[in-house]
Amino acid sequence: MKILNYKSMEAEPVTMEGSKDASVRWLIAREDGAPNFAMRLFEVEPGGYTPLHNHDNEHEIFILEGEGVVWKGGNEVAVNAGTAIFVPPQEKHQFINNSQSVLKFLCLVPV
Amino acid sequence: MKILNYKSMEAEPVTMEGSKDASVRWLIAREDGAPNFAMRLFEVEPGGYTPLHNHDNEHEIFILEGEGVVWKGGNEVAVNAGTAIFVPPQEKHQFINNSQSVLKFLCLVPV
Repeated sequence: MKILNYKSMEAEPVTMEGSKDASVRWLIAREDGAPNFAMRLFEVEPGGYTPLHNHDNEHEIFILEGEGVVWKGGNEVAVNAGTAIFVPPQEKHQFINNSQSVLKFLCLVPV
Repeated sequence: MKILNYKSMEAEPVTMEGSKDASVRWLIAREDGAPNFAMRLFEVEPGGYTPLHNHDNEHEIFILEGEGVVWKGGNEVAVNAGTAIFVPPQEKHQFINNSQSVLKFLCLVPV
């Protein structure tokens, strides 16, 4: 069993093209023996965003702190602490922090 | 894309033998098209607990609010908001709320 505070894992800058002022901490990964899926924690600074993109794998997301918007089918949907989001495979998505405080969310993906 | 506040999903009592004063909300499930894993949110009242048990599937857990202890190899390890826990397949585990406030955590499992 692995038990950790998320702050003990390094926050690595998200370097993917189309992202701004976002970082990721890998909390539970394949290296821990996770057989099916991995847990990451993202922090997006005010004015920052993740890339608008799509891909084969799904996302399961839970907003921990702050607020922002999710790009969904060309519209921006407001989200905040307590929002869960399922992004199916191949659906285009982006997470934008349009607030004055840090937006923190979990994002789980298949390993 | 499914976007929801966790409170919009019903909190169902955990009826498994060996549990006390715990409920679960299924936030993202197979019925939503999730191909690999599901997201549930547990709430354990003060003095409550989940069963001490083990099983074939892993858990990936993140403590959202409150504090408690995790049974790990015969010891109780303190956890609180911001703690992530990986329970490998077959490892025995239990979540106990020994505090005065509600313990809330996400627990993801394979579908």
